[in-house]
Amino acid sequence: MLHAVIMAGGSGTRFWPLSRAATPKQLLRLAGQRSMIQTTVDRLGDLVSAERTMIVTNRRQAAAIAEQLPSLASDAIVGEPCKRDTAPCIGLAANHVLRDDPDAIMAVMPADHVIRPDDVFQQAIRQATTLVEASPGRIVTFGIKPSYPAEIFGYIHRGEALGDPSGSNVYRVQQFREKPDAVAAAEYLASGQYYWNSGIFVWHARTILDALAEHQAELFEHLKQIESAWGTDQYNAVLEREFTAIRGISIDYAVMEHATDVAVIEAPFDWDDVGSWQSLSRLQGTDDAGNTVIGRHLGVNTRGTIVRSDGDHLVVTLGLRDCIVVHAPDATLVANKHDEESIREVVRRLEEQGWNDFL
Amino acid sequence: MLHAVIMAGGSGTRFWPLSRAATPKQLLRLAGQRSMIQTTVDRLGDLVSAERTMIVTNRRQAAAIAEQLPSLASDAIVGEPCKRDTAPCIGLAANHVLRDDPDAIMAVMPADHVIRPDDVFQQAIRQATTLVEASPGRIVTFGIKPSYPAEIFGYIHRGEALGDPSGSNVYRVQQFREKPDAVAAAEYLASGQYYWNSGIFVWHARTILDALAEHQAELFEHLKQIESAWGTDQYNAVLEREFTAIRGISIDYAVMEHATDVAVIEAPFDWDDVGSWQSLSRLQGTDDAGNTVIGRHLGVNTRGTIVRSDGDHLVVTLGLRDCIVVHAPDATLVANKHDEESIREVVRRLEEQGWNDFL
Repeated sequence: MLHAVIMAGGSGTRFWPLSRAATPKQLLRLAGQRSMIQTTVDRLGDLVSAERTMIVTNRRQAAAIAEQLPSLASDAIVGEPCKRDTAPCIGLAANHVLRDDPDAIMAVMPADHVIRPDDVFQQAIRQATTLVEASPGRIVTFGIKPSYPAEIFGYIHRGEALGDPSGSNVYRVQQFREKPDAVAAAEYLASGQYYWNSGIFVWHARTILDALAEHQAELFEHLKQIESAWGTDQYNAVLEREFTAIRGISIDYAVMEHATDVAVIEAPFDWDDVGSWQSLSRLQGTDDAGNTVIGRHLGVNTRGTIVRSDGDHLVVTLGLRDCIVVHAPDATLVANKHDEESIREVVRRLEEQGWNDFL
Repeated sequence: MLHAVIMAGGSGTRFWPLSRAATPKQLLRLAGQRSMIQTTVDRLGDLVSAERTMIVTNRRQAAAIAEQLPSLASDAIVGEPCKRDTAPCIGLAANHVLRDDPDAIMAVMPADHVIRPDDVFQQAIRQATTLVEASPGRIVTFGIKPSYPAEIFGYIHRGEALGDPSGSNVYRVQQFREKPDAVAAAEYLASGQYYWNSGIFVWHARTILDALAEHQAELFEHLKQIESAWGTDQYNAVLEREFTAIRGISIDYAVMEHATDVAVIEAPFDWDDVGSWQSLSRLQGTDDAGNTVIGRHLGVNTRGTIVRSDGDHLVVTLGLRDCIVVHAPDATLVANKHDEESIREVVRRLEEQGWNDFL
């Protein structure tokens, strides 16, 4: 049976001042009436029922996520005691789904990407499931055809076409690549042989656990300790102790680089990682002046600017070019688009100054 | 006896979103703990007692002004039924002070200028009073030595030095000049013979009323009707009717251009009309990065920018140059400094859209 595992561990400093430690990006309504994690669950439609959908997040966010997703089972939200990257998260989830379903197939996906349309996404996951069923030890990934030489994503170097009856968009994976520098990114784009790594995977839960056992023995041992405490009153203490002891590592490093039977599906859906305020222009579109506005705004001689205002608060812009203005009840960000990356610096300095109310 | 007449009729759209119809510039604390009108009263010190200080404003602001100035007499705040420029305002005030003091000398001044230091200002008003006492029909004005070729002020063309024992900074006025264009403003500045018209005047109340009677017979007749109703239960109705019927005209046009015995004192005090958000930089100074900040602010790579935030609200700026960011509880302005004049356009468009909460 197919299970959905939604990874919701991001802290989302990039969307300050809307995103905070307690309300990271996946909990925000950035581009619609539903939050990103709600949209991610909605997107599954009939593909996976609520009983087979789980969320892995950090403990601090677990309550807020449960509140946003009342249809999920009470044990469907797993709170990690600390941040340890994707491999421990995925191992924890694999053990979770295996408890009731030894043949479980997992579709793993981030909680904070925009993917459209829903039916194309569901069809793509079905295709991946078929590929996994055809070769039980197989790992299936989704690659996004790059639209520009991005340096902020990992890449997947595709090999020969798989020649699979499920579709002509399936290839063997030749190699996973880390985030490249500008030169490499340009080469990847020009070659036509590289995809952005979407972070969406489909595999048998057993397959990924076996791979972790083979390539990450220490990590696997910690996971085994955690799993053996399941159902006992020691579980939380063991989870805390063992998970904390794990060395953080991404699933790409932990498993992908060693795996042999890995396929990549060229994603047939639209995908956006919503990595920054500038993504809003892609998602919401722009008006004639190139502005993207969410909330109450009056612009005079304003172009290429993103405005996001909360509630009834009015933002007025005069003579702005290529700026970002975000108003939250307790804080306002005004940034030059070309300086948006410095938002991490802002969060760092807020920490430094002890202005914890804003973190 | 010397009376102070403070003209507080401005609507202050230039300080939107802090200034609104109900809280114009003179009621704001733009550059300190006290509002501009409070500071204007404070500045009089021992020169004029509270009993001889009056405010002429529009009716809508009268209550707010009374609240800010509890030491004033209950009839010291005169609310005009409508806006009719400075001449009717001054005529009304002249009649007011003449009721109890037929020899009253009036010092007329705007409520919304910054003047420093207080003692130099008081000394200058004393000098003007002496000049008026020496020649009872005389009108004394204050001229500000221009520091740049401003097009936003009226100018006073000085004539020969008065050779008065009160000081070497007194001249006959040759001519009052309207706001000039750039070419004329540059000529005025270069000549060294022109002052900015500060809008501060000293005269016998009787002198200015006689001048209005002579040069503005119709206006004077309306003022006479109003004054004759003083103390009757018809007063408010008559004020409403007669004042509304007056054609608005400035004191410069109404009287100054016709008057013969007019002196100008080169102001020995620092003066700023606080005409725009940019004035804050002059008044508050700037930090090493050229920023002027009032309120809670964190700036990264921000220069030449003015930030004004209310209460505890945090404003963060990233990569801004020469901007103005003003946060009020219900609205935020983000403007390019070079576009600040367009703020009038903003207020016009808010009216157009019927967003009256923001006006």
